[in-house]
Amino acid sequence: MRVNFALFEEVTQLDLTGPFEVLARAPGFQCELVAKTLAPVRSDRGLGLLPTRTLADAGPCDVLVVPGGPGADAALGDPEWVAFVRDQAAQARWVFGICTGSLLLGAAGVLQGRRASSHWMARDLLAAFGATPMPDRMTQDGKLFTSGGVTAGIDMALLLVARVLDKAAAEQIQLQIEYDPDPPFPGGTPATSREEIVQRCVAAGSARRALREAAVQAAAARLGT
Amino acid sequence: MRVNFALFEEVTQLDLTGPFEVLARAPGFQCELVAKTLAPVRSDRGLGLLPTRTLADAGPCDVLVVPGGPGADAALGDPEWVAFVRDQAAQARWVFGICTGSLLLGAAGVLQGRRASSHWMARDLLAAFGATPMPDRMTQDGKLFTSGGVTAGIDMALLLVARVLDKAAAEQIQLQIEYDPDPPFPGGTPATSREEIVQRCVAAGSARRALREAAVQAAAARLGT
Repeated sequence: MRVNFALFEEVTQLDLTGPFEVLARAPGFQCELVAKTLAPVRSDRGLGLLPTRTLADAGPCDVLVVPGGPGADAALGDPEWVAFVRDQAAQARWVFGICTGSLLLGAAGVLQGRRASSHWMARDLLAAFGATPMPDRMTQDGKLFTSGGVTAGIDMALLLVARVLDKAAAEQIQLQIEYDPDPPFPGGTPATSREEIVQRCVAAGSARRALREAAVQAAAARLGT
Repeated sequence: MRVNFALFEEVTQLDLTGPFEVLARAPGFQCELVAKTLAPVRSDRGLGLLPTRTLADAGPCDVLVVPGGPGADAALGDPEWVAFVRDQAAQARWVFGICTGSLLLGAAGVLQGRRASSHWMARDLLAAFGATPMPDRMTQDGKLFTSGGVTAGIDMALLLVARVLDKAAAEQIQLQIEYDPDPPFPGGTPATSREEIVQRCVAAGSARRALREAAVQAAAARLGT
């Protein structure tokens, strides 16, 4: 099982590193980080990650993983990234969109007529690409797995291992990474967080939201949805 | 708040990248990855991470984060890493050991007479360094925060943000990263996993366990505990 992770500048690194930790532990899975060049790529918070393949020599994959972050908004408008995701998604057995990575899948035309999840602050924008936005933490529609923000990619990667291999393989990884989560506070979704916290997130994300809306509108216009 | 992450070869990357995603979002926190040189470092599963500082020029920190993984066992026997962790822990306001990173804290003499957590397959080894092994996912003993395996570092980083800043800051990050975890299966601890799964993990980890025991015994002998 070859897994290609899309690695663009200003990715939200945990969208990628969470599923990587799970999938790289699955027997027979080989994980590659695919970027424009082999130069280190910086996450939105400055973590430097090293690509292993370029877009040109990525080769086909069984699982395509598209993380999100501010960089996904830029990638929506980048013909090289859009073509890469479109072509890789067409031949992959499974396609994974985490957080706002699902917007990039949308811009590549992969989500037309499909149900999909995304980060709660961006989920409604999926409709611009002909998708039905789902409020769920994980949505499976055929070979498409899409998830909510950041940490949801860990849950979804475990589910994928169970589907592709078997449940015991996923449970073994879950125990290896001691994944019995215990968040110190209630919250983590707009429904479970205090209203004050939701408002703080929306305010802190308003500039990003405006950039994202513009990027999505332009990408949807090019796609013709 | 300056945060120094110890970055050694064969680190379990999610031990580091999970807390990094949380701490790098906290207002006023600056995260640095400290390694022997500025050359890329490979995780135990092949993810390449880029250091930002060397051991020699790391400078003092407010928060020291020590991740685990097979590389932590090698670092236990490496005088440069042991001295770095000892010196940084002595002056830090908060010290963080994730997964088997707490063994490296132990080898640096930081855990003598203290309560500490670690990965469930390594927890008992903390006693060799004069610590009291705790079965909890997170243990706070004064300025020392130690956790169980891998994903526990995310929970613990949220707790640290709440302690250092305030609860609302931690809740805001929790909502940004949509941390309302929903593992697809029960499990994630030896108590909640099926016995067959626990046995598979123990069998798969037996060679690593033997290496780790030897490394801990040698490090404890050097420390004189």
